[in-house]
Amino acid sequence: MKRNIGLNDYVVLIDEKNNKHIVEVTGEVQRVKKVGVIDTNILIDKKYGSSIKIGEKVFHVLEPSMQDKIQSIKRKAQIILPRDAAQILMNCSVEPGCIVLEAGIGSGALTIALASIVKPKGRVISYDVREDFIEHARENLRRARLEEYVKIEKQDVTQGIKEKELDAVILDVPNPWDAVKHAYEALKTGGYLCAYSPLISQVENTVKTIRKYPFIEVKTIENIQREMIVGERGTRPSFHMLGHTGYLTFARKILPERIF
Amino acid sequence: MKRNIGLNDYVVLIDEKNNKHIVEVTGEVQRVKKVGVIDTNILIDKKYGSSIKIGEKVFHVLEPSMQDKIQSIKRKAQIILPRDAAQILMNCSVEPGCIVLEAGIGSGALTIALASIVKPKGRVISYDVREDFIEHARENLRRARLEEYVKIEKQDVTQGIKEKELDAVILDVPNPWDAVKHAYEALKTGGYLCAYSPLISQVENTVKTIRKYPFIEVKTIENIQREMIVGERGTRPSFHMLGHTGYLTFARKILPERIF
Amino acid sequence: MKRNIGLNDYVVLIDEKNNKHIVEVTGEVQRVKKVGVIDTNILIDKKYGSSIKIGEKVFHVLEPSMQDKIQSIKRKAQIILPRDAAQILMNCSVEPGCIVLEAGIGSGALTIALASIVKPKGRVISYDVREDFIEHARENLRRARLEEYVKIEKQDVTQGIKEKELDAVILDVPNPWDAVKHAYEALKTGGYLCAYSPLISQVENTVKTIRKYPFIEVKTIENIQREMIVGERGTRPSFHMLGHTGYLTFARKILPERIF
Amino acid sequence: MKRNIGLNDYVVLIDEKNNKHIVEVTGEVQRVKKVGVIDTNILIDKKYGSSIKIGEKVFHVLEPSMQDKIQSIKRKAQIILPRDAAQILMNCSVEPGCIVLEAGIGSGALTIALASIVKPKGRVISYDVREDFIEHARENLRRARLEEYVKIEKQDVTQGIKEKELDAVILDVPNPWDAVKHAYEALKTGGYLCAYSPLISQVENTVKTIRKYPFIEVKTIENIQREMIVGERGTRPSFHMLGHTGYLTFARKILPERIF
Repeated sequence: MKRNIGLNDYVVLIDEKNNKHIVEVTGEVQRVKKVGVIDTNILIDKKYGSSIKIGEKVFHVLEPSMQDKIQSIKRKAQIILPRDAAQILMNCSVEPGCIVLEAGIGSGALTIALASIVKPKGRVISYDVREDFIEHARENLRRARLEEYVKIEKQDVTQGIKEKELDAVILDVPNPWDAVKHAYEALKTGGYLCAYSPLISQVENTVKTIRKYPFIEVKTIENIQREMIVGERGTRPSFHMLGHTGYLTFARKILPERIF
Repeated sequence: MKRNIGLNDYVVLIDEKNNKHIVEVTGEVQRVKKVGVIDTNILIDKKYGSSIKIGEKVFHVLEPSMQDKIQSIKRKAQIILPRDAAQILMNCSVEPGCIVLEAGIGSGALTIALASIVKPKGRVISYDVREDFIEHARENLRRARLEEYVKIEKQDVTQGIKEKELDAVILDVPNPWDAVKHAYEALKTGGYLCAYSPLISQVENTVKTIRKYPFIEVKTIENIQREMIVGERGTRPSFHMLGHTGYLTFARKILPERIF
Repeated sequence: MKRNIGLNDYVVLIDEKNNKHIVEVTGEVQRVKKVGVIDTNILIDKKYGSSIKIGEKVFHVLEPSMQDKIQSIKRKAQIILPRDAAQILMNCSVEPGCIVLEAGIGSGALTIALASIVKPKGRVISYDVREDFIEHARENLRRARLEEYVKIEKQDVTQGIKEKELDAVILDVPNPWDAVKHAYEALKTGGYLCAYSPLISQVENTVKTIRKYPFIEVKTIENIQREMIVGERGTRPSFHMLGHTGYLTFARKILPERIF
Repeated sequence: MKRNIGLNDYVVLIDEKNNKHIVEVTGEVQRVKKVGVIDTNILIDKKYGSSIKIGEKVFHVLEPSMQDKIQSIKRKAQIILPRDAAQILMNCSVEPGCIVLEAGIGSGALTIALASIVKPKGRVISYDVREDFIEHARENLRRARLEEYVKIEKQDVTQGIKEKELDAVILDVPNPWDAVKHAYEALKTGGYLCAYSPLISQVENTVKTIRKYPFIEVKTIENIQREMIVGERGTRPSFHMLGHTGYLTFARKILPERIF
């Protein structure tokens, strides 16, 4: 990207602690929360990868990557972290062109990851029952410039799924087991079901329900991540570590057994 | 995919232990290692998602997904597992259309993951110094039908990188630090560097070299995965667990500091 | 221990893979399983810390330590590993002189750890319902020379505990919740209850029952251990790792609430 | 312990967050940090296991256990946590009657664990180079009533160890490798060496030095602990987790190889 920053570009500002803020270069003065007041005109014609000083803080200015888009979202609900989103994408074999459904949309973090991969021809369908979450997530998607790849529906996934032949159905709801039957029917043969749940009891109910339908490759994993700190005197794992995010249950639709 | 299996399709055969084999429906009798002798004609016109019996074993027949493609490769060298490939894709923000370089190609497991995501417009460039690895990986890519998205070069990444403006450079070589300078020059501004290394000493040398160049968001993570077993009497973590795969170091290119 | 090996001593033979065998120096020729035929006379007057060759294998000869005693037991049932025994000892504050009850005895691995610490004045009381386990464990205790500190009872801990004023009660039975009431009554004020269970459902039932009684400091932990391999080229975690042993639930008896 | 609280007893006060404070029942009014002002006379003749109200807080009153003694120490330096102390005790086979050396003493947390187990006949020898640490630890030991079992020396363990025939030598110093030779000479045959180090580079230097001497059973472990939260709606691992404490390296002295 040799091109310099232009009017109407979206840029990400990254501070020294890796806090990220996506800003639209409107040519106007904006007040950005946790950043300060910025005259976006000063960004125009600067090189991507440069640094600017706003108040006392220095920010790197870059084109927003998928990671930037996820990490800069405003959080309303607990989000699915990129580390778990990564496992969902891989274990559901989400590729460009896929049609995937997620429920609920939450703050849209997973939605951004999914839309970034299925685009430009694929689509994300997002169900949520709460209007406020939908509006909040839509704003995050707009800032990530991924709105056009996502179809949001105010819909309860445990009441049914209208779509058919889906490549993947991803459930981040309190009672995923109530949507397993609908997911089975909505998936294409070979399509993937995923449920993200913090509690063991949720995993148990989901797995037991999955086992009633023709699914294969049923597994539940926990993904744990630890940072390594490379210091002057030597290397060690970080003392700070998130002990738990959620369990990820995966399954894959086949046809009812008919051996030939 | 309502369509039935047709001549010249590639299908994946999955047994009860989730061993996977990709087979081309050539209309001929084939001997598939660990599967047996199969007359591929019997597959034609069957439904995807059906099961077939070969010898004493039952196999599910599906269209190969990204996961199938990775899990069915023939291994020559130690591969980067899907769990780590997932973190690489996410942390390097690999999206459709990206141009990414990896070195070395190994058995092509990461190559398949990368190609599956950057396609159809993006490209993977794979460097390796060993002709036998290249040939082996090429065969795995051919079976995964991803060959056209990968440009393989017999090239030593520590000697230089010809390409410019790359979205990501991923190093799976014993001495990644010797390629850091080349990676910096080959990356676009905002592009990502990743090094995968099993040893702490490799991490230390890589991080120390990275710190000499204008990179931000430098971090090293270890990703650990544990399966949960949902049984009749209750749930517990699996006794079987891989204690270590490799450390993943990430960094992101910016321009040499010029604050304005 | 400057003294040399003498007649009637118990010695531990340790091979290169750290397999351990406790042998009594009877002055006779013995056949030791996985070691071979050994004339114990050749050990007499040798120095502790020397090495002997038996068949093709070399063994270090040492006085048996607590670790040796645990690691050399013959296993009949699944044992509580030293890593978990260590947490039990610490979290139950087991000290010399304590009177502790365990149920069941299993192969006697935890029994050896407990007896080693409470001796010489304390005692371990071991309940088990199976005569064959009792006999097997007794033989392991005899070889560890700790028999005199352990009182074994053929008794079902879920049917009641006769003893009173116990310092600790440790439950390694499938249904620990059925013994919680008995444990509460048998413990001294300030005494510790511990339940070792592989399954989450067991943990849940136990914790819910514990909460019905005046216990404080109720907690459940999972203890995970990973070995680090220091090699010529660098250091890394071991690839081999036990993914799970059991959850450890602890609680401590107080009197029914009366605030003054 | 049917006996009630008496004059000159030491009691532990435990609040609802498991903060612990050991208090001597002097019959006087005391100001206890983080507890408040307490007239110790009100404790006399109360039952152990009762609760008292001091200001707005309720405290359980118990006889101090080994855990209480460790958890109530005033911290000056970073302490070795009970979870790691437990592994040290087990892997060094520390039993009643053992003579063990530790260096440095730090705040005395490990010292309390060691003294609790080797007493009444064994001894802990503690080296430290800092007078202020020694005084601070001595006060913690006095409060734990374990002072008589510990011999504290203002001594640099890397300069030599005077004692001989030790059962264990435990090194919690920045450069344990400089004390390995001294530890070898000070240990009895079959005795255990332990080094506690947060950094990989420390582990590497220590292990490489250990390999120059006749030690067997050389291993380095990392011990990780995670709490499980049993809630109303289900069970999950705690979100809060300590990512790292230190690596534990163990080794065991044998004689220089002489096979007979």
